[in-house]
Amino acid sequence: VVSVNHGTGVATMKFKSPPVNSLSLDFLTEFCISLEKLENDRACRGVIFASAIPKIFSSGLDITEMCGKSTEHYTEFWRAVQETWLRLYGSNMVTVAAINGSSPAGGCLLALSCDYRIMVENPKFNIGLNEAQLGIVAPYWFKDTFVNTVGHRVAERSLQLGSLHPAPEAHKYGLVDELVPEEKLQEKAAAVMAQWLAIPDHARQLTKSMMRKAVLDRLVAHREEDIQNFVSFISKDSIQKSLRMYMEMLKKK
Amino acid sequence: VVSVNHGTGVATMKFKSPPVNSLSLDFLTEFCISLEKLENDRACRGVIFASAIPKIFSSGLDITEMCGKSTEHYTEFWRAVQETWLRLYGSNMVTVAAINGSSPAGGCLLALSCDYRIMVENPKFNIGLNEAQLGIVAPYWFKDTFVNTVGHRVAERSLQLGSLHPAPEAHKYGLVDELVPEEKLQEKAAAVMAQWLAIPDHARQLTKSMMRKAVLDRLVAHREEDIQNFVSFISKDSIQKSLRMYMEMLKKK
Amino acid sequence: VVSVNHGTGVATMKFKSPPVNSLSLDFLTEFCISLEKLENDRACRGVIFASAIPKIFSSGLDITEMCGKSTEHYTEFWRAVQETWLRLYGSNMVTVAAINGSSPAGGCLLALSCDYRIMVENPKFNIGLNEAQLGIVAPYWFKDTFVNTVGHRVAERSLQLGSLHPAPEAHKYGLVDELVPEEKLQEKAAAVMAQWLAIPDHARQLTKSMMRKAVLDRLVAHREEDIQNFVSFISKDSIQKSLRMYMEMLKKK
Repeated sequence: VVSVNHGTGVATMKFKSPPVNSLSLDFLTEFCISLEKLENDRACRGVIFASAIPKIFSSGLDITEMCGKSTEHYTEFWRAVQETWLRLYGSNMVTVAAINGSSPAGGCLLALSCDYRIMVENPKFNIGLNEAQLGIVAPYWFKDTFVNTVGHRVAERSLQLGSLHPAPEAHKYGLVDELVPEEKLQEKAAAVMAQWLAIPDHARQLTKSMMRKAVLDRLVAHREEDIQNFVSFISKDSIQKSLRMYMEMLKKK
Repeated sequence: VVSVNHGTGVATMKFKSPPVNSLSLDFLTEFCISLEKLENDRACRGVIFASAIPKIFSSGLDITEMCGKSTEHYTEFWRAVQETWLRLYGSNMVTVAAINGSSPAGGCLLALSCDYRIMVENPKFNIGLNEAQLGIVAPYWFKDTFVNTVGHRVAERSLQLGSLHPAPEAHKYGLVDELVPEEKLQEKAAAVMAQWLAIPDHARQLTKSMMRKAVLDRLVAHREEDIQNFVSFISKDSIQKSLRMYMEMLKKK
Repeated sequence: VVSVNHGTGVATMKFKSPPVNSLSLDFLTEFCISLEKLENDRACRGVIFASAIPKIFSSGLDITEMCGKSTEHYTEFWRAVQETWLRLYGSNMVTVAAINGSSPAGGCLLALSCDYRIMVENPKFNIGLNEAQLGIVAPYWFKDTFVNTVGHRVAERSLQLGSLHPAPEAHKYGLVDELVPEEKLQEKAAAVMAQWLAIPDHARQLTKSMMRKAVLDRLVAHREEDIQNFVSFISKDSIQKSLRMYMEMLKKK
């Protein structure tokens, strides 16, 4: 659900894909289209991302898209994941993640790709790139985004352990910038957005690009190779088995 | 004003260019000449930089040098800015910044280019690369120096917001290494200098070069290109207008 | 002394080369052989490194190997130092350093090359890359390993000063991950190991490689050049003199 406030120039995009905002191919396709529209809307200078579903921001990549499907499907899916990151991490708009629940794996990547992250201070909510726990490996550009946010050492340890950090720990490590009580989340997101919008767009955009270009360019230059890597990795019997077991476990919960 | 203590091998360079130690072409030219003299003086092993003007370390690049001047002037000015950074960031001497006041933009770069930064703990004094607030963009080698000091994430946020950090916040982020009461500044700078000079020069210099060479080499390899970028950027009508407005605002103060 | 617990899949390697676990050519050769055996032992998934000598983890590279020897000897010694780092930093096993004493220079490198560092909280024990204090320079791959652990700024300062950080300071800077009372060291190391071994090996290994490959590849690509640099540096009269003086000083202690 996207709404633009033409007074402030700030859009709000509320994820609403029950039960847990999985990043399915449909979700990602719609996300990219919405983002592109906002990017081209001169009345819109910033976007706040939030979830319309309690306790969860986004549960990350939809595992059903990676399990028992065709090579063509995996290719299409992965291209959409890449596209989402390229557009969000490289967005010209100010992007603020208002994280009102847990945000593992791909959900964490969405948050990391924003300019600023505010999380509800509830220690039951956690966030992290936990791919290793599932027996899979975060792609190098997930890793690059993570390192740019928390530094090499925290990333090295957290990625290898597949850690999901409770909100207070995520804040301590710099994975999120700020913690607030749940009822203050929207208000705080709006205040942060106003602070960022006080800077002339042109100067802010060039500065953002200077900071993120090296990492974005790396994927752009190796996009097809990255798709091939993903498809061949995910097609392995051992990986398919791990993912099926993980899905069984989720269903039982 | 430069004085060398031949007993300790430590020079002190006190900036005295009223009213606010703007980095004019004259200032930078004199700075480079003084630094080169010290670099070639075998009796001198370290320099402490301070300001002879209360409440300000340096206000940064002199905007009058960037406003309404010729292309030739912009070229000469920018080459002097580059030269200053190349000499200071790559200095073989131990360099300590004794920051006795505010130090925005280019003033912050001078401090960042030293080996150690001590700042007066007065929260009214602030420091940062605030270029974005003026509608301009810090060059990539300002950014590299900043990232090497505070890490990628703090730099990303601070540069985009053009933040000027009050001394306590600057210390928290690692932008300065230490805070002291104003009356202890010179004493502390001398003590830090003595600690660094206890290390054999040769080993310290090779180590320093190992840490800073990658970033220095990048500018050296692209120096003319960087000048061209600056000149074409600063010559834009929109940028000239921003700078004129900013100067008007300063005059009214 | 190496022992493997086939129940847990965890080996313990206890350094026992009195008086101070110097990294002599013999020590390094044996270390590499032991590590390779464990690497090829399918029953072994992790190694805990500790010292059998009280108050010292390892005193670093054995200076007698670098003093008054032939070019051939220096070459052989340096290749063994490289080999040790390449195998340890790139190990497929989980590696935990249980640091029960001081660990300067090469001893610090061993610890930095592990996945996790636990140090006894005694402030009399210190750790750091103190090469500069001896008038020598840590190689760039020591520096890379250090930067990956503590970040650029802490590394820049610590390497130039040749700092040996007491345990509490080492923990503050992220040079070690955790401090424990001496009597809890082994227990804690085992608990941390169990946490890391809970992650599927394949995912953890690929993730580790993704984080460390760039830095490992750099030495692999320039290994002979690095040996030449070392040999020509260490063969200098001035360096030989510094090392002899340092050894005299140690003997007097």
